[in-house]
Amino acid sequence: MENWVKAKNEMEDIVLSSRIRLARNLQGIPFPDKLDIPNGKDLVNKIEENFYSVYSQEDYKTIYLWSNDRVSNSVYLEKHLISPKLLNNTHKGAFICDKEQTVSIMMNEEDHLRIQCITAGLNLKEAYETANILDNKLEENMQFAFDEKLGYLTACPTNLGTGLRASVMLHLPALVMEKEIEQVFTAISHLGMTIRGLYGEGSRSEGNLFQVSNQVTLGVSEQEIITNLIAVVKQIINQENIARERILKKYNYEIQDKIYRALGILRSAILLENSECLKLLSYVRMGVETGIIKDIEKNTLNELLIYSQPASLQKNSKETLSKKQRDMQRAILIKSKL
Amino acid sequence: MENWVKAKNEMEDIVLSSRIRLARNLQGIPFPDKLDIPNGKDLVNKIEENFYSVYSQEDYKTIYLWSNDRVSNSVYLEKHLISPKLLNNTHKGAFICDKEQTVSIMMNEEDHLRIQCITAGLNLKEAYETANILDNKLEENMQFAFDEKLGYLTACPTNLGTGLRASVMLHLPALVMEKEIEQVFTAISHLGMTIRGLYGEGSRSEGNLFQVSNQVTLGVSEQEIITNLIAVVKQIINQENIARERILKKYNYEIQDKIYRALGILRSAILLENSECLKLLSYVRMGVETGIIKDIEKNTLNELLIYSQPASLQKNSKETLSKKQRDMQRAILIKSKL
Repeated sequence: MENWVKAKNEMEDIVLSSRIRLARNLQGIPFPDKLDIPNGKDLVNKIEENFYSVYSQEDYKTIYLWSNDRVSNSVYLEKHLISPKLLNNTHKGAFICDKEQTVSIMMNEEDHLRIQCITAGLNLKEAYETANILDNKLEENMQFAFDEKLGYLTACPTNLGTGLRASVMLHLPALVMEKEIEQVFTAISHLGMTIRGLYGEGSRSEGNLFQVSNQVTLGVSEQEIITNLIAVVKQIINQENIARERILKKYNYEIQDKIYRALGILRSAILLENSECLKLLSYVRMGVETGIIKDIEKNTLNELLIYSQPASLQKNSKETLSKKQRDMQRAILIKSKL
Repeated sequence: MENWVKAKNEMEDIVLSSRIRLARNLQGIPFPDKLDIPNGKDLVNKIEENFYSVYSQEDYKTIYLWSNDRVSNSVYLEKHLISPKLLNNTHKGAFICDKEQTVSIMMNEEDHLRIQCITAGLNLKEAYETANILDNKLEENMQFAFDEKLGYLTACPTNLGTGLRASVMLHLPALVMEKEIEQVFTAISHLGMTIRGLYGEGSRSEGNLFQVSNQVTLGVSEQEIITNLIAVVKQIINQENIARERILKKYNYEIQDKIYRALGILRSAILLENSECLKLLSYVRMGVETGIIKDIEKNTLNELLIYSQPASLQKNSKETLSKKQRDMQRAILIKSKL
């Protein structure tokens, strides 16, 4: 798998990353919500022991959220290595992560285990294969809660069955501009899928970035989930491309204006709010994707997407930043990279 | 006198230009409004004859509005060489202009003669001296309508007496930002003065540019008018400077942000509307005036102020421009100069 942030994927790519997540629980142990801190930490130890009996500590490491400060933990969230829910379980939450930061096994999130694999571009199968191997290896020495009829048992019934969530992050500026995104939302929900913002469940869509994922986990096979999602994503990509062609034909100068202005502002602002920054980065990304901007690499935009987030900015600073200082640091970062 | 557009006046200067205008009418001839076209043109010939008997045709030339197209005439308006009223009198309107474009003698505007002198910076006395010499020279061979009690007679009673309007163009972004400009308006009106937009009477104030001028022409001497106006202008400059200091202290980064963003947008936009352009140029001017921007000359900003106007853009183009094409040409012009 390839780290999606560093990936210099195809210029015309609308897909930033593909993600597979498997929810697993150990038999006979209460779900994390019902675990007290000592028992939660015991569980982490147990999983780790098992994991490192198969995988090398040279390739993977465990991060214990309870021994980190809030800022460092939030950086992992901003990097999409952990979920908002794990961040709220810091007292017993931990995760195992590979060097390339494409694999993250969260412990004591909503379920005991959340095996997550993220890779660049539209590569769900590759991500699933990796997740599947990890799942099998872990299952060799651990008994996962499993029911013949229901499949894998999970804390939330929406994950029952395969425990699989597959998701793809897409950049859809033209569908947003053309106000067609709502139709896409509706169509997707009819297909048993869902569309969310940059940071998953409950997060707002910012910078025209959307995560499309399967809603249904029960009564369908892993292969079906992935095949269906790929088909839907390809259709959304197609719609986005059609919308881009249309607006570039109809509003060529207006779009170029928006793109170059965005770049101009990013290169000159002294204060940049997060939300505006994401919006401007989206225009620049669209410029790169459509070939209007030629001197910026997509991995630069991905890096800025992550490192311009509040905790990442705070992490790179010695003092505690006020909102305004953060806006300044964001502007400095963006200027230095573009 | 120095052409204000080309002038590289002091960086901290808030004053762009000083203007003196004298309204004069020839005795025994109806005011322009009552003159038909042949009689209007006869008057122009008569004034010209007189003028060129004293001044050389090498230094001055006459522009007959009736033999020009609308665009060329509008360019003179945009250069502040003629007034909107003269532009509405093209069938009999004309003006004599010097090479440096600091002197303009309008004929058949509201009055038979409008002697106008514009110079760079706060130099009303210099402009008045030049206007006065022209006035005296013209009066040697022409009988101006004059009443012992009322002074010079003019078409509009507001110009009776001295027929003098002195005005100063000021850049007042801080007073606008701080919403103190309304107070200045009120204070000025109590002092028998008035404040107007970029293109004089009835024009909107755009780009934070204002023309302060005397309202009263009757019962005060020319010297008093000028002395009073200079005093008022100096006070406004002082208030603007205080406001600048205050906002730069209080909102230093926000102001810098506005200034650098404005420059960034001007340097990268593909489409630029006139009104937005004037607003952005004002921020850049403020940047230059406060020393935040160091690599831009004020005369460049003055030139852009004029040449980014609709007629000037049209004049420099072979085809008839639509609004959108004009916005494109404006963006190209601005980009090439900044």
